[in-house]
Amino acid sequence: MFQEVSQTDKPAFLLKRRKVTSEYNRTCRLGTENPQSAIYVLGTSLKANLNRSAPPNSKFFSVKCTSNVQYSISPPHQETTHLSPIPLNGNSMLFISMSRASQYENDSKLSVQYYGGKKEVLGRALLHLTAVEISLDVDADRDGVVEKNNRNKGTWKWGPNEHGAILLVNCDSERTYWKKPDSEQNYISKVSDLKDMSVMVLRTRGPAKLPEGYKLTMHISQGDAESVRVFKSRSSEVVNNTLPEKLFYNYFVKEYPLVLSSEVLSQEVPYLGGVAEMNFYVEGLRFPDKDFDGLITINLSLLEPICEGLPETPIFTDKVVFRVAPWIMTPNTLQPVEVFVCSTSDNYQFLKGMRNLVAKSGYKLKICHEYENRGDRWMQDELEFGYIDSPHQWFPVVLDSPRDGKLQDFPYNELLGPDFGYVTRVAQRKDVSSLDSFGNLEVSPPVTVNGKKYPLGRIIIGVAFPTATKGRNMTKVVQDFLRAQKVQEPIALFSDWLLVGHVDEFLTFVPAPDRKGFRLLLASPDAGYKLFRGLQNDGHGQAKLFEGLKDEKPITIDEILNDGSLQDENNYVQSCIDWNRDVLKKELGLDDEDIIDLPILFKLVVEEEKEQYRAVAYYPDMVNMIVLGKNLGIPKPFGPKVNGRCALEAEMCSLMEGLGLSCTFIDDFASYHKLLGEVHCGSNVRRQPFDFKWWNLEM
Amino acid sequence: MFQEVSQTDKPAFLLKRRKVTSEYNRTCRLGTENPQSAIYVLGTSLKANLNRSAPPNSKFFSVKCTSNVQYSISPPHQETTHLSPIPLNGNSMLFISMSRASQYENDSKLSVQYYGGKKEVLGRALLHLTAVEISLDVDADRDGVVEKNNRNKGTWKWGPNEHGAILLVNCDSERTYWKKPDSEQNYISKVSDLKDMSVMVLRTRGPAKLPEGYKLTMHISQGDAESVRVFKSRSSEVVNNTLPEKLFYNYFVKEYPLVLSSEVLSQEVPYLGGVAEMNFYVEGLRFPDKDFDGLITINLSLLEPICEGLPETPIFTDKVVFRVAPWIMTPNTLQPVEVFVCSTSDNYQFLKGMRNLVAKSGYKLKICHEYENRGDRWMQDELEFGYIDSPHQWFPVVLDSPRDGKLQDFPYNELLGPDFGYVTRVAQRKDVSSLDSFGNLEVSPPVTVNGKKYPLGRIIIGVAFPTATKGRNMTKVVQDFLRAQKVQEPIALFSDWLLVGHVDEFLTFVPAPDRKGFRLLLASPDAGYKLFRGLQNDGHGQAKLFEGLKDEKPITIDEILNDGSLQDENNYVQSCIDWNRDVLKKELGLDDEDIIDLPILFKLVVEEEKEQYRAVAYYPDMVNMIVLGKNLGIPKPFGPKVNGRCALEAEMCSLMEGLGLSCTFIDDFASYHKLLGEVHCGSNVRRQPFDFKWWNLEM
Repeated sequence: MFQEVSQTDKPAFLLKRRKVTSEYNRTCRLGTENPQSAIYVLGTSLKANLNRSAPPNSKFFSVKCTSNVQYSISPPHQETTHLSPIPLNGNSMLFISMSRASQYENDSKLSVQYYGGKKEVLGRALLHLTAVEISLDVDADRDGVVEKNNRNKGTWKWGPNEHGAILLVNCDSERTYWKKPDSEQNYISKVSDLKDMSVMVLRTRGPAKLPEGYKLTMHISQGDAESVRVFKSRSSEVVNNTLPEKLFYNYFVKEYPLVLSSEVLSQEVPYLGGVAEMNFYVEGLRFPDKDFDGLITINLSLLEPICEGLPETPIFTDKVVFRVAPWIMTPNTLQPVEVFVCSTSDNYQFLKGMRNLVAKSGYKLKICHEYENRGDRWMQDELEFGYIDSPHQWFPVVLDSPRDGKLQDFPYNELLGPDFGYVTRVAQRKDVSSLDSFGNLEVSPPVTVNGKKYPLGRIIIGVAFPTATKGRNMTKVVQDFLRAQKVQEPIALFSDWLLVGHVDEFLTFVPAPDRKGFRLLLASPDAGYKLFRGLQNDGHGQAKLFEGLKDEKPITIDEILNDGSLQDENNYVQSCIDWNRDVLKKELGLDDEDIIDLPILFKLVVEEEKEQYRAVAYYPDMVNMIVLGKNLGIPKPFGPKVNGRCALEAEMCSLMEGLGLSCTFIDDFASYHKLLGEVHCGSNVRRQPFDFKWWNLEM
Repeated sequence: MFQEVSQTDKPAFLLKRRKVTSEYNRTCRLGTENPQSAIYVLGTSLKANLNRSAPPNSKFFSVKCTSNVQYSISPPHQETTHLSPIPLNGNSMLFISMSRASQYENDSKLSVQYYGGKKEVLGRALLHLTAVEISLDVDADRDGVVEKNNRNKGTWKWGPNEHGAILLVNCDSERTYWKKPDSEQNYISKVSDLKDMSVMVLRTRGPAKLPEGYKLTMHISQGDAESVRVFKSRSSEVVNNTLPEKLFYNYFVKEYPLVLSSEVLSQEVPYLGGVAEMNFYVEGLRFPDKDFDGLITINLSLLEPICEGLPETPIFTDKVVFRVAPWIMTPNTLQPVEVFVCSTSDNYQFLKGMRNLVAKSGYKLKICHEYENRGDRWMQDELEFGYIDSPHQWFPVVLDSPRDGKLQDFPYNELLGPDFGYVTRVAQRKDVSSLDSFGNLEVSPPVTVNGKKYPLGRIIIGVAFPTATKGRNMTKVVQDFLRAQKVQEPIALFSDWLLVGHVDEFLTFVPAPDRKGFRLLLASPDAGYKLFRGLQNDGHGQAKLFEGLKDEKPITIDEILNDGSLQDENNYVQSCIDWNRDVLKKELGLDDEDIIDLPILFKLVVEEEKEQYRAVAYYPDMVNMIVLGKNLGIPKPFGPKVNGRCALEAEMCSLMEGLGLSCTFIDDFASYHKLLGEVHCGSNVRRQPFDFKWWNLEM
């Protein structure tokens, strides 16, 4: 029954390999007093100090083992036959491994015999061995399937052909009534919720049960516990979806018990025996943020009993690492899905224009009615659409702004739902300013900057001037959140020079068939003055802006060009935009040819009780447009008519037509422009996600 | 006076170079209505859109400039003589640079003349230019000298031959009475304090004063402001150090005014005119921590006035980056400087032993007397010595434990002082456990692990078992602090199995002449049993431990070996130490030959009101030693006498003498061992810093 394998029978590479995998070496004890027993986990090695267990005066030893057991001896010694005792020295170590899982407890053994100086037997240490195979598995290769024991499952690396499993924040709500984000309840209430979780499989192989007192335990650190929950599947039955809710709840709590959470950092999990697989469902609870890098480790340990009153000690730990998927914004160049606008008592004209544009473009229009918007028409400002993505699931996620105007309940009440997630950041009221509206949060199309690729574009926010001693800012909690997502590294522009203070008042991106696939459009007072001077020069100085508008006094081109103060104000505005232009060119890697200046004038107004002048658009701010594929919905500028056509519209069309874009001018004068916003401020667009997968980013 | 330089006169490389430095391009405006003026900052380029300022119908342009001015035109056009007008196109850009600082305001100029289709002159844009040189400088190359305009001063990189300036937390106290860390006062009270700060120099060159309304401002972000303070030197006079304190205070506040702080994020700094240098002193206020990566950026901007009521806009920003030096621990292998122990009513014997050992070794002994220690003898536990280092200054820094026993005031009252810093982390009383004593905080000598170098070693702390559902831990604020220092990446061991719970109860490091330069010593019950069995075997079973000790009943080797329960308890202890041994081997890259097992037995005791058994040393725990160069101060074990000599001492000496180490056994039985501590717990050693500079670490 015993097979003796001396160290010299081992090929050299085996010893080398063991050296490399030394991190899985576990010290075990031999004893000549009583037989010992040990569990061996496949892929590791047991290591025993032969000297420690040797009886006094031992000078030699020999080793025997059953066929499933292999061993080697270190330091290697000179040739020896497999029967002759080997000299014992101070550091003689025995490395033990086994080639397959045991069918029965203690079905293998190894013994060490000790000899004195005259090769007389002094004692014998017997070790009973049980081999088990244990592997906690995840989709580390990101193909949507949980493969077996991926060697890289314990680490996470960005990039194509790299590895590391992915977790979604379970921020949608499977329930449509009494709804709240699924991550806020610590049980599974619908089978459909499992889709939003990452599957984790515990694969074991071994005897029908573990030796007495041994157990498996799954555990997470205190730090990770606030970011993750683990459920277990009690069976793999498909559930009848028509059960009443109450029954359903009890059913699921029983079928998918909670294993780990912020209350339970460690819990025993059953060892099923034989060849077994057990499914777990892992749920992300929070997005990466300033204090959370997004990485989560889940451990599975095999514990060895010592005795009553003493904690068991782990003799093997397997671990898997997940990264929580970031929240990703969608630039204007992505395909629209739905357009959102508010209906108010005074915006019939605007709604009609939007309805036509959206219908023509072939997308869905969703109208937020007055009972819900309570007169707050700034659909752009209350929320930002984005999404989260993993190899097994994706869904849109709305980021709710801390602005909290009268539209504040819309994202939660109307958008949150099955496969539609919700996230927000809460700020102190005193820290929230107009710069926290999400007209001040945009994202560029994909760019490459000095060789560094941003295939998901870069987020653009507006802040106070870097040198300002005071000024308004986007609140820190939102900035920290955006930065922590990592995949669309934010750029901070200077927007505090504007009364409303949003970056969408001076920039937008439109698709283009050439160059980088897009153009950056910038409001430009210089371009406006140039256009007007050209018109004056051609004899149209008496053409009037604002003609036909109720309550608005028309003004001629000559009057505008003669207003020295207005020119000064616009010089200032141009210098502010130029400053941002330089930043954008640098941070997005743009050339001048990638930028189009739109003829837009501003004027300065002084805020009540403050001595600070800030800018508003002089006529409807055409850059504040909605981009739906090749169709642009642009605020109708009410510019001077030349040969029967608005010169500003004509200029706009001429600038856009080279890009194959079609301009639709929408009258937002009374209901938006006069309230200091335009088409873009009053609308929002949910778009298709990127084809590019965020985990393929090279960081 | 005017010199005409056409674009074709420029060698091609110049155009290319400009492309590369485009990040310093600033958009400037030309105007045909009035002459414009601009400040040019050396090393940047001004860029004007020729089309924007062109009168209507312009088809051609030409450019002239004075000798100090260079320009180029983009897109490049086909050959042209320097007098013939150049065709104007939609994207014609003019790039302007200057080769040296101006002596007078507006001493250079450039003009653009515009022509119609028939080359008739339509207008002329004139630009007056003033060139200045501005550079905010730091010691970015880490040689202790502030070089001029280091091209890498705005970034920070780890490694030899890399770059990035360094800042110390000004945590010592220049004052010896009414003392507090200098970082806690927002003024400079002694000229010696300047040594602890990093010098930053603003170098300028240009006309005697800046054009009307322009100004220089230094600014930091809100986030950095809590970590840094900047003072300015009003003059470079050396100060008379004998002034009375009061006068002194006023003098320094005047001589070194505060420029930036958490209250003042942005402040104007004077432009001195001509060729000038102004010194600033930068003070670090906080160590890297979980929420602070240690990097700080200081900006200097040149602001351009617009008009009354409008903020100035920056037209040039220079920035420098500092990293705050981490707190570094010193392993046993570094040269001792001072040894600290407490004097109590009952430790005369111990003190005598320590005094002899320290005197023999040639170091200073500092005794903390009873009025100060109030009976708290655990000098190791209340504090940890470390240091901070920069190219210009270093000093020791004591980390004060949140343990806060009766020794709690010692670090602040006795150690904090000139060139002796102090740092602590405050935890809630309920979060503090015995594992927060710094006997549970050690550091390894330098190691290399799988090719990764740790030239400053790795910090070692003890925590609860990873799978434990409850257990004591080192408090999070201290763990976060240690981890955030980055340069000695911590290893967490399992120490909660010990009643006191400190890693120094089972491990220490001693210097060695060979291998990695050190050995890891581990307590080993197996080694203890092996030794005793050998003695029994040789006929010494009746030899007694604890002989001659008052109040201690001697026990024979036979009795110990016959105690099956004690053997079980020690098997458990050995398994706990073995678990840590495996972790240490992996995390420090050690071989078995780097580890020496010391014969030490433990016993388990049950804590009152808890059902948990935990371990204490059975006889004085020899591993808990003080290491002073080649002299070891070891708890006298009171082991069995064999041939007149203590067998444990003999074994210890024999294990150490191969390393050239000398063992001194110190009787700590009554005054330390019986109170659950030993020599190491009752002492502390301040050591020399590493020769290796932390910024040369490769991360």
